[in-house]
Amino acid sequence: MQKLVVRGYALSIDGFSSAAGQSLENPFGTGGLALMEWAFKTRTMRSMFGQEGGSTGIDDEFLAKATENIGASILGRNMFGPVRGPWVGDEWRGWWGNNPPYHTPVFVVTSHPRAALVMEGGTTFNFVNDGIESALRQAFAAAQGKDVRLGGGATLIRQYLRAGLVDELHLVLTHKLLGSGQRIFEGTDNIADDYECVETTGSETVTHIRLVKKPRT
Amino acid sequence: MQKLVVRGYALSIDGFSSAAGQSLENPFGTGGLALMEWAFKTRTMRSMFGQEGGSTGIDDEFLAKATENIGASILGRNMFGPVRGPWVGDEWRGWWGNNPPYHTPVFVVTSHPRAALVMEGGTTFNFVNDGIESALRQAFAAAQGKDVRLGGGATLIRQYLRAGLVDELHLVLTHKLLGSGQRIFEGTDNIADDYECVETTGSETVTHIRLVKKPRT
Repeated sequence: MQKLVVRGYALSIDGFSSAAGQSLENPFGTGGLALMEWAFKTRTMRSMFGQEGGSTGIDDEFLAKATENIGASILGRNMFGPVRGPWVGDEWRGWWGNNPPYHTPVFVVTSHPRAALVMEGGTTFNFVNDGIESALRQAFAAAQGKDVRLGGGATLIRQYLRAGLVDELHLVLTHKLLGSGQRIFEGTDNIADDYECVETTGSETVTHIRLVKKPRT
Repeated sequence: MQKLVVRGYALSIDGFSSAAGQSLENPFGTGGLALMEWAFKTRTMRSMFGQEGGSTGIDDEFLAKATENIGASILGRNMFGPVRGPWVGDEWRGWWGNNPPYHTPVFVVTSHPRAALVMEGGTTFNFVNDGIESALRQAFAAAQGKDVRLGGGATLIRQYLRAGLVDELHLVLTHKLLGSGQRIFEGTDNIADDYECVETTGSETVTHIRLVKKPRT
């Protein structure tokens, strides 16, 4: 059974996963990149960007598992880039350079149509403009039996949570405060009944929290 | 220097500290009492209610420290009781019976005047109807050099946070999901600049988080 999973998704103590003020310079909003400090310290994340060294241990193990058995990803438009409104040509090709760290089909949920974008290293960005359920169907098909990772941002995760479509979440509670921004838990009243916390593991820098959808009774 | 402190204040993973639907039967709202399960397991909490046994260890140590050097408390009206609107006589005397676990002066912030209520065991409930700063001044005076504990609820903590009046917070991240309810972090944009996380300690049941106000520069 294929699953839709959120993995390695960082939150601030006050519950935000990105700050206000996203721009080309600040993909996570003003000050929001602080939520990723724990990840940039790990060997797994550093090697994703061609860098040597980095920590091993709890954080690194969770990050290494985050890409396990993932056959496709779904992203919100704002996670793909800071551009708003209709796409203008193929100028914006994501935050990640020519060889993005996905290496699978990626489905970007957007209101505006755009032709697929084939990148190096196995990543193809497909643009889906007929809703989150269509994106999930297409991603499951493309994943060929593997799971689909819902990468974010917060707005998109919220939508999938409200629709009860997320099977597992691995959240990373950082020790940062953002003050304002986007929350994944808002208008998600259903999660108290639908999910349970099956693990919390503290490292030196963060707390890893795993939520799993309860079996339907 | 006297401090205003929040201690042992439990949050759900989705960021709520009480659920909707507070009533006489459900002081924390429907399902909200789950946030206190960790506390009711400890020796310190059990002994506060005259019960024997209970766990020692991390959670118990934090709870024991929660009342250290506290000379007065401040509560919001909804934390004092489920009654709304003007007070009718002295019928409602708090959730805690004749001998409440405060044993100090307590200042209840309310819109409606009421005469002080002297309970057994050293607790006096004083009703303050001219705002949070007045309540804090009165509590500091009554605490005679000791610190003042801000007990909650969420609405009141939020007000004190927005006003920059809280010196330290010890929050307890439980492994529960509430789905909806009251948050302490909402419209508290200032906290990212004003506070820093100085400790997170995981126990088997919860994660303890300490936030401290940065020194003014």
